[in-house]
Amino acid sequence: MRLVVVGGVAAGLSAASRARRLDPSLEIVVLEKGARISYGACGLPYLIEGQVRSIDELTVYTPAFFEKDRDIRIRTGCEVTAVQHGRREVLLRSGERVRYDRLVWAAGARPVLPFTGANVFCLHTDWDAQRLLDFLRDRQPRTAAVVGGGYIGLEMATALRARGLAVSVHHDATTLLNREDDWLTKRVAGRLARCRIELHLNTRVASADSLGADLVLVAAGLKANAELLADAGADLGRTGALRVDERLETTLGGVFAAGDCAEALHIVTGRPAWIPLGTTANKMGRIAGANAAGARERFEGIAGTSIVRIGGLAVAATGLSSQQARREGFSPVEVVVEARERPKYFHGCKVAIQLVADRSSRRLLGAAILGDEGVAGRINVVATALAARMRADSLASLDLSYAPPYGPATDPLLTAAQQLARVLD
Amino acid sequence: MRLVVVGGVAAGLSAASRARRLDPSLEIVVLEKGARISYGACGLPYLIEGQVRSIDELTVYTPAFFEKDRDIRIRTGCEVTAVQHGRREVLLRSGERVRYDRLVWAAGARPVLPFTGANVFCLHTDWDAQRLLDFLRDRQPRTAAVVGGGYIGLEMATALRARGLAVSVHHDATTLLNREDDWLTKRVAGRLARCRIELHLNTRVASADSLGADLVLVAAGLKANAELLADAGADLGRTGALRVDERLETTLGGVFAAGDCAEALHIVTGRPAWIPLGTTANKMGRIAGANAAGARERFEGIAGTSIVRIGGLAVAATGLSSQQARREGFSPVEVVVEARERPKYFHGCKVAIQLVADRSSRRLLGAAILGDEGVAGRINVVATALAARMRADSLASLDLSYAPPYGPATDPLLTAAQQLARVLD
Repeated sequence: MRLVVVGGVAAGLSAASRARRLDPSLEIVVLEKGARISYGACGLPYLIEGQVRSIDELTVYTPAFFEKDRDIRIRTGCEVTAVQHGRREVLLRSGERVRYDRLVWAAGARPVLPFTGANVFCLHTDWDAQRLLDFLRDRQPRTAAVVGGGYIGLEMATALRARGLAVSVHHDATTLLNREDDWLTKRVAGRLARCRIELHLNTRVASADSLGADLVLVAAGLKANAELLADAGADLGRTGALRVDERLETTLGGVFAAGDCAEALHIVTGRPAWIPLGTTANKMGRIAGANAAGARERFEGIAGTSIVRIGGLAVAATGLSSQQARREGFSPVEVVVEARERPKYFHGCKVAIQLVADRSSRRLLGAAILGDEGVAGRINVVATALAARMRADSLASLDLSYAPPYGPATDPLLTAAQQLARVLD
Repeated sequence: MRLVVVGGVAAGLSAASRARRLDPSLEIVVLEKGARISYGACGLPYLIEGQVRSIDELTVYTPAFFEKDRDIRIRTGCEVTAVQHGRREVLLRSGERVRYDRLVWAAGARPVLPFTGANVFCLHTDWDAQRLLDFLRDRQPRTAAVVGGGYIGLEMATALRARGLAVSVHHDATTLLNREDDWLTKRVAGRLARCRIELHLNTRVASADSLGADLVLVAAGLKANAELLADAGADLGRTGALRVDERLETTLGGVFAAGDCAEALHIVTGRPAWIPLGTTANKMGRIAGANAAGARERFEGIAGTSIVRIGGLAVAATGLSSQQARREGFSPVEVVVEARERPKYFHGCKVAIQLVADRSSRRLLGAAILGDEGVAGRINVVATALAARMRADSLASLDLSYAPPYGPATDPLLTAAQQLARVLD
């Protein structure tokens, strides 16, 4: 029995490793288009910023590790150009055919590039990062325009700003960070201004030249690498990514999909969503790998939890904003609370918490949190509450930890939940 | 209608404030034995350490605030010496009788003192702290012995150590921090050793003199201030604290209890427990105050979540240890995982996570986490999962936030939960 995994980064290697653990007798082959596997692509902005010194620092495991320790064959430089599911074969660019019994499709996503140019960059692979680093070194650009106000766009804007460039961000919507939320956008815009990063919202950029910048970084969204499998007969969902069932099997029997190429169940809406993130890829890969090896595991879904650092500010969100909730048929109620992360005498910074709940069911729907170091932990509590379909009232009565060095006696999250419960009454 | 609240710190003032919010017409009187209300008693060790400069910094609200802004009468220096529930009266030490229609008993707890002496201290009230500060200033002690290895004992040991004293800790059990957990104890003992704090476990101290220290700090446990209400006919639970129903009403009709004097439902065992903590006091106070004002709110219970900083190490726990779980009739399974809190290139410290689950139901029972800054957030995620009665498998698939400055792509908590699920299979 041979398992072929297409894609050698987060989802693919999680799938291969899990399958190996569950079935020591399986033959496992990973086909990776690029030259490098298992690197933390999310660290690339920090490579540009200088926090990470070389791409090698981002590599988690080597092919040799997978081959020797996990008996997983890694083939880099192998681009799949077609899938012939009737024959259970994938076709490589070299013309070679690779037979499979089970297939895990973890081909990721690719950046949408509205235009190209010698000074136009994206930041999706190690190769992209190297090209940008070379340009920064050789050409010493002084101005940069970032196209896109999502996570990568804003991380890259602050990274380039940290390198001393004058930076502007151009975003085609009125709200930032893929969350339809004016409150969050206003806060983030304020922080960008403090970093002296120019922000242009609701601006469609037609060409690189129109930006008049030495360097243009495009982070204007991704597209799921789903076409080849769709050509082989797999269904796409309404998001354009691969449709999968709760076991992450595509509509082609024995073919599983995981990571940025596939949809995932959203635990708040109960409907498929496409929110490409590395954390989701790792978890989906584990489930897809297990099921490809014969297990029957269910992927419990995503809440769209994310965090990004913008000029020292941690900006996190999970679940739905009010606007998103309204479109999904909820009657959202929203509160915003600002409080200290720690007692005054521990020099606590302020944290701002927005909570959203459904008026009739009192069910928690989402949150956005901005602040200093306690933000990740607090958004994770909300993500956990969302997974448990918790009501605002239960969130308010959680038994959270407290000691003066770590927070105030009543955690700001509880204060916010108490206010939310009051507004719902 | 008059509500009398006995106790003017966490639970009492939460109760009074909530009652006022729900019923603007209620007459509300708070009787506080001491001279000061509304101060963060949990900050006292940090006052001793020097992080807090004066007791005034710990005061949250003044009596004037409660009187003017909340129309709540605050009477300090009023010690209740008896309750005559038949006549709906409390008797003060002055001889005065105060009539009530509803009573919230939030009289707290008191330290158990096995011995006293001129160089023997406890740290329960602002007065205790002032006496200790005076002694430290006037007598310049060079050695300190701390009796008790709970939270206050260990916080005080590190606070005195930080002031330059040679410190020893003497604890009458084999495990520290009120958690029967050899793993946790070993880790904490290691950290104490690094701080050059001597630790003597399983040692009963008969007298202050036997310790041969310039200063003796007793933090050997608390006793609920429940006797006066028990004398008036209220039932005590098996823990010795006041028995309350889910609305926090004692067995005396119209008399509610909240905070350190009362039991609370433990969400893991489903049985009453007595774990005196400020966070619980605040939450119980809110519910008791609401119900005393005529609402019908339920207190959802506690998980015993706590965190303490010991020589820079954050030590947190929630729910049950394996040993505690076994005694409660569970079949505990335990895993310990060590991982980086952040990617290597962000100089992440190590975090150690212990998770406990029940073998047959796979239900999560508890956790202990030690590490740097991400500890509070992670223990709170587990506390939330406990409140939701989550299984290990669901914990492993939580959609937690990730960005390199805040954590590794697969959060150590998820790694631990995955291992736990594997061990349960």
